[in-house]
Amino acid sequence: MTSHTVYRTFTTAQRRELIRITEDVQRAVDEAGVREGMALVSAMHITAGVWVNDDEPGLHRDVLEWLDKLAPPSWQPSKNPAASALTPDPGDYRHHAGGEDNGDAHLKNLLVHHQAIVPVTDGRLDLGPWQQIFYTEFDGRRPKRLIIKVLGE
Amino acid sequence: MTSHTVYRTFTTAQRRELIRITEDVQRAVDEAGVREGMALVSAMHITAGVWVNDDEPGLHRDVLEWLDKLAPPSWQPSKNPAASALTPDPGDYRHHAGGEDNGDAHLKNLLVHHQAIVPVTDGRLDLGPWQQIFYTEFDGRRPKRLIIKVLGE
Amino acid sequence: MTSHTVYRTFTTAQRRELIRITEDVQRAVDEAGVREGMALVSAMHITAGVWVNDDEPGLHRDVLEWLDKLAPPSWQPSKNPAASALTPDPGDYRHHAGGEDNGDAHLKNLLVHHQAIVPVTDGRLDLGPWQQIFYTEFDGRRPKRLIIKVLGE
Repeated sequence: MTSHTVYRTFTTAQRRELIRITEDVQRAVDEAGVREGMALVSAMHITAGVWVNDDEPGLHRDVLEWLDKLAPPSWQPSKNPAASALTPDPGDYRHHAGGEDNGDAHLKNLLVHHQAIVPVTDGRLDLGPWQQIFYTEFDGRRPKRLIIKVLGE
Repeated sequence: MTSHTVYRTFTTAQRRELIRITEDVQRAVDEAGVREGMALVSAMHITAGVWVNDDEPGLHRDVLEWLDKLAPPSWQPSKNPAASALTPDPGDYRHHAGGEDNGDAHLKNLLVHHQAIVPVTDGRLDLGPWQQIFYTEFDGRRPKRLIIKVLGE
Repeated sequence: MTSHTVYRTFTTAQRRELIRITEDVQRAVDEAGVREGMALVSAMHITAGVWVNDDEPGLHRDVLEWLDKLAPPSWQPSKNPAASALTPDPGDYRHHAGGEDNGDAHLKNLLVHHQAIVPVTDGRLDLGPWQQIFYTEFDGRRPKRLIIKVLGE
């Protein structure tokens, strides 16, 4: 079994940002020389995610707005009463007692997940026609790491 | 390491539908002859998912209703004010500007996830007593693909 | 390829409980003698999850409160109108027709997921500085199993 590990560090300009990494993952597969196996793509932080979805800017704005309703940040006004109702009952996240303000980013990480496993067939990422891999930053503007681990033969 | 890849295509009669695929995944493991390893089960579309849960029809209806509240479709009336509040602020998904109407299916894909990894022990899917694997279609009535990739020895 | 499988059984004192299992997973990797590979950590029940996030008690309380709004239990009063609106329209989960009362735990399992894959590099779990692995019980007070499967070389 061959194993190949690549780390990438992202320092996004915005607090939230989506970065397409399909090409990075394919490059790791190429470097590994793996023909059959998988690539594990995993955020190494608890306020970022990895997802596989469409590379369509309208959808990206839809998703970020929707996540701000489901897992509302306390550092900006609530989008509407439903979003307010999904904030914690003490009025702010308990997690912020220590001086943090990124409680919502932790919840978003749990919702969209911090990792994806991409099958590798005949040396290529075996994705459907519209599947692209994204690193999804929910609390950026500082260096954060991602691991790509290719396993196979 | 042995690798075996199976593709399945589903064309569901309904727009949303759950299809139990535990037996398909076990068959792929049998074909691979793998005794120890894993089966990666992954939707190849961005508007479908794969989950492991109970094969209980009441629960399935509960989940589909609940997903329509958390990630509301714009092609049917909102279930209630909370569901309305979770639709996008422009009144419809930005993703629909290009003529699509499946924005909600993308969000559902992100919520329930497009893949699961099933451990294989002694040639069998190593699942708990009530765990069944489902392909979960959120925008069907057209051919959509699933990949099952078995890796192990 | 080396494979090593460990089962753990949890009987939590509370209905909901988070149990840190990072050390259990590392121990399984040590026992396997795997230097490069992955550890699949997967709940064997459909009312429990596995997640990778911060070991911070305030955050844990935030997450459990938030999950009770997003996937409301019917065995306690709703937290607020938004949580009520996310309960099923028949007034109770259809899943409860058979005498169960854990419909919400199934939904929570789908939301936070029942599994995580941890990369193993040079014999160590390759996690970021704040990443800890948790077994997340949503319907405990009875024995429930978890599988840890280490694959690699």
